[in-house]
Amino acid sequence: MNFGIAIHGGAGTILRSSMTPEKEKLFTDALRTALQQGYAVLEKGGSALDAVETAVRSLEDCPLFNAGKGAVFNNAGTHEMDASIMSGKDLSAGAVSLIKHVKNPVSLARAVMEKNEHVFLCGDGAEDFAKQMNLEFAGDEYFYDAFRFEQWKKAQETEGSFLDHNIETQDTRHKTQDNPNDKKFGTVGAVALDKDGNLAAATSTGGMTNKKFGRVGDSPIIGAGTYANNNTCAISCTGHGELFIRSVVAYDISALMEYKNLSLREACEEVVMKKLVKIGGEGGLIAIDKHGNIELPFNSEGMYRAMKSSGGTEKVEIYKSI
Amino acid sequence: MNFGIAIHGGAGTILRSSMTPEKEKLFTDALRTALQQGYAVLEKGGSALDAVETAVRSLEDCPLFNAGKGAVFNNAGTHEMDASIMSGKDLSAGAVSLIKHVKNPVSLARAVMEKNEHVFLCGDGAEDFAKQMNLEFAGDEYFYDAFRFEQWKKAQETEGSFLDHNIETQDTRHKTQDNPNDKKFGTVGAVALDKDGNLAAATSTGGMTNKKFGRVGDSPIIGAGTYANNNTCAISCTGHGELFIRSVVAYDISALMEYKNLSLREACEEVVMKKLVKIGGEGGLIAIDKHGNIELPFNSEGMYRAMKSSGGTEKVEIYKSI
Repeated sequence: MNFGIAIHGGAGTILRSSMTPEKEKLFTDALRTALQQGYAVLEKGGSALDAVETAVRSLEDCPLFNAGKGAVFNNAGTHEMDASIMSGKDLSAGAVSLIKHVKNPVSLARAVMEKNEHVFLCGDGAEDFAKQMNLEFAGDEYFYDAFRFEQWKKAQETEGSFLDHNIETQDTRHKTQDNPNDKKFGTVGAVALDKDGNLAAATSTGGMTNKKFGRVGDSPIIGAGTYANNNTCAISCTGHGELFIRSVVAYDISALMEYKNLSLREACEEVVMKKLVKIGGEGGLIAIDKHGNIELPFNSEGMYRAMKSSGGTEKVEIYKSI
Repeated sequence: MNFGIAIHGGAGTILRSSMTPEKEKLFTDALRTALQQGYAVLEKGGSALDAVETAVRSLEDCPLFNAGKGAVFNNAGTHEMDASIMSGKDLSAGAVSLIKHVKNPVSLARAVMEKNEHVFLCGDGAEDFAKQMNLEFAGDEYFYDAFRFEQWKKAQETEGSFLDHNIETQDTRHKTQDNPNDKKFGTVGAVALDKDGNLAAATSTGGMTNKKFGRVGDSPIIGAGTYANNNTCAISCTGHGELFIRSVVAYDISALMEYKNLSLREACEEVVMKKLVKIGGEGGLIAIDKHGNIELPFNSEGMYRAMKSSGGTEKVEIYKSI
């Protein structure tokens, strides 16, 4: 039985010209670490669910990515994180939104899936449940990051909210081309197929810098940012959340495979390179099907991504590979 | 050009044996009023969006239904309402969740769709936006209803949260068979096709009695509780929200039509009577396609529903019509 895993650390206008070899190495090392940790779970016969949770926790714990420790600041100067997870075996799912002090939102999403009668919990109520589950909490100081703070101060001056990669282009008063952190969509995710043929997907994000009004993107929305179904595929998205919600992106890939008999590659091409491009929906996704085929499509300049399959293929990439 | 509208006031174990003619009349009168108000918009050449918003506002303002004024109590003894709206013309959408004091949540969802860069706003932040938009607010006394309060006190004793129709069956200590209010899923919704060929859908709910942890159901989830696309259909769901989220119900109807060339009736049959039944997903939905065909399928005992089309058909029904 084939097995494999793919992860992403966000997509966006990630240009080789604005990177340094040192910064590239930081990102690729962090991706490789998360990939290996998730793959090790699968190799030992662990579940796809454990593999995606492990990989996403690793990315959440890394300050380079906009999720968990590296979450961006919202308009109020605090953090609001969203996450979701889904099991392709029984279509069970868990999602959380507007989480402020849970160290690993993806693990809270998993607790919701497995230990709560509901699928989607939000805000203070979701954190009350996290306390009952004895999940690890972290104070504001854990989530504080000097770079994220500066990024927020700049966004505040424009009174806009920004996708993590877009501050540079939208805020022309404050060019930050020398800082590659600025150029990515703020989401991490993982998809996996285990030795038992079960698929799983998970996504986690800090949302948009300076976001207000309790904005929720696609990451915690089952069907939009995350979807898994053993009959078809597992998907985790990263991109302009509003357009991904309206396009029901993750489930759309599955529906094209199930109802139109498209291959994973064809379905990804149709949704990411055609349907999303048509409506200006910048971003990408990671996908694995029930046979272990992996696709990592994106219509933006770059996407932090990595994959490893039991067939021997391993990739860690940032830019478009032409 | 055909046009038409359908509405629902929730589904569930609504049994003829536990109704009185007087109560039946209250419900059918309220449904007829909402239907006529929405239909009048279409007849005058108004938009499908205006029609569904008008009909849902009418249902929100009626204390019989679990949305707006009639919203059930949550675990904290307050109200948390969710709503969403979608335009089939351009796939624009708006959704709000955990709303406490906005009189008509569906109108807030529409304001999000038309006047906010985001699609989904949640909690206090969403109410801040409502204030900016000068939407009408209402105090706790407006949402207080003696029946809902008693319903909540009973649910509290069991420490469970209940779908609006399920208290009777789950709380055997407090049979409320004499009260038909107790027997429905708590959601209202509308779908419409206007004279210009545009489709729209809207859904609004007070959620589950005694719910806690900031539970969010399918009603504000685009693709799950609400979906509209001029190429296919407009859908508003009512049922066991968790299973509707996991099944991406509203978009699934659209995908079956677009990718598998099913008719609206065939797609409804497949999703509501087969896929949902298989996983125990009790409930139903209202659907209208681009030709003006209307379907009102449900797999529960009953569903408060009504429809009127320019072809002359008009129905207001509660129970299964055999």
